Amino acid sequence: MSPEQGDARAIGVFDSGVGGLTVVSALMRRLPAETILYLGDTARLPYGNKSPATVRRYTQRNVAFLEERDVKAVVIACNTASAVAERRPPTASPQWGVIEPGAAAAVAVARKRVGVLGTESTIESGAYERAIHRLRPDLEVYGRACPLFVPLVEEGWVEDEVTEKVARRYLEPLIERGVDTLVLGCTHYPVLAPLLQRVAGPEIQVVDPAREVAELVARELMSRSLLASTPRGLAGDSESSPGALQRPDHHFCVSDGGDRFQRLAIKILGACGIVDPAFSLEWVEV
Amino acid sequence: MSPEQGDARAIGVFDSGVGGLTVVSALMRRLPAETILYLGDTARLPYGNKSPATVRRYTQRNVAFLEERDVKAVVIACNTASAVAERRPPTASPQWGVIEPGAAAAVAVARKRVGVLGTESTIESGAYERAIHRLRPDLEVYGRACPLFVPLVEEGWVEDEVTEKVARRYLEPLIERGVDTLVLGCTHYPVLAPLLQRVAGPEIQVVDPAREVAELVARELMSRSLLASTPRGLAGDSESSPGALQRPDHHFCVSDGGDRFQRLAIKILGACGIVDPAFSLEWVEV
Repeated sequence: MSPEQGDARAIGVFDSGVGGLTVVSALMRRLPAETILYLGDTARLPYGNKSPATVRRYTQRNVAFLEERDVKAVVIACNTASAVAERRPPTASPQWGVIEPGAAAAVAVARKRVGVLGTESTIESGAYERAIHRLRPDLEVYGRACPLFVPLVEEGWVEDEVTEKVARRYLEPLIERGVDTLVLGCTHYPVLAPLLQRVAGPEIQVVDPAREVAELVARELMSRSLLASTPRGLAGDSESSPGALQRPDHHFCVSDGGDRFQRLAIKILGACGIVDPAFSLEWVEV
Repeated sequence: MSPEQGDARAIGVFDSGVGGLTVVSALMRRLPAETILYLGDTARLPYGNKSPATVRRYTQRNVAFLEERDVKAVVIACNTASAVAERRPPTASPQWGVIEPGAAAAVAVARKRVGVLGTESTIESGAYERAIHRLRPDLEVYGRACPLFVPLVEEGWVEDEVTEKVARRYLEPLIERGVDTLVLGCTHYPVLAPLLQRVAGPEIQVVDPAREVAELVARELMSRSLLASTPRGLAGDSESSPGALQRPDHHFCVSDGGDRFQRLAIKILGACGIVDPAFSLEWVEV
């Protein structure tokens, strides 16, 4: 493996279902040369209304699955799993959750009060609050569980009067408290970002952790010399001309068969601006 | 075991989560002397958006769990599980799903057109349609997946303008087709029965399979001499006076810990008219 060629192994990304593809789309944009190995635990989804012990057990299995497939790094894209995951032992391969980057992104723009939207388990865990307070103890943090957002996104009711009514009800207590920043603390929610921004009003900053996650992954892979190839235009690879990078072979694994995942995946990637996504699909038992 | 004392073993009832308690409440009312052993597979719920193969695998495990605990009969209260369950081999212990009783209840009142509300998997399976046509091939059957009803019930938005809007959207195509009967093909939906009846209008009969399930269980346990005791007032048991039957010890098992189940269970049983329900709760791995 020469430094020019880089580390061709995939970045492992795990989520309870399709929601993590909003993080995948941010990774694809920020690191277009990287291959993604995605695992959606669709046989057990959703995680957001399950107990920490159960979610922790599933998360361990899923991370082990990705590591057995020799990924060079693991992204726990699921907020609920990130919120309750145990501190990992220092290992060779880097691993990230989405809470810390989400908190960092919120803190970068927040003035006084941050609202966090998430699943019941994520909000109950208090993980965002703790992560935000580690960075800025002066900020007030208010959490709000929004259990209907995931099924509404999966139903495809994105720009919809029902979804807007639900959003108004969920956001109202946060708006009344005067939050100036709103964290989308579940990977499904970025699909609703335009509607949530409209309901929240122009004064409130809506923060999607996904971009910060991708930035963090890019920085750490670079510092560890784990990038798939040197940046475009700087590559000394004689096989391919600069500007003509080969499209990486993304591979998505799901624990529940059926075509539901594929249908939703194309919908969610499309909503994130990834049109004509190319990936192979595999049904696995985890 | 004397015929007067009857068979004290529990009736096993399994559902993906709390929804099956609408069936349990019907059993409690119809068979007040029977003990219920309930299994809610809350670690893997919901089943309604998962593939038949996955649901079948979970169902087999859950039925095996109940049989290991020596139940005298098994009720698969979950419509999705009932819809895809394999025909069981003829065994000693009786087993029922909810599709056949639901179809029988619909056929008893339907004139020409039956609408079936259910999860995506239940509707896609076509199980209700087949069961209804076995009884009355002349009836037209129209299915409608209503994936938002379960999270709306679990959110507690029962008599609610959002839920009414969602119900109107789901029911509209069925009403336009002129259905005269509406089957509640998911155990969560009876909680919404008053709202659904209002949206459907007085001309449409709303059918909850639970009562028919309880009736069927009662008849078959009686015919097999498996009832817990002879009916009240006929008992020759000298220990307890007629009219003062001891309250049976219901036991509920869940595969996900946490207090979410208990909270929802009390809410759902309450909505079904079972106030102050007494049950012990156990966290199990299935």
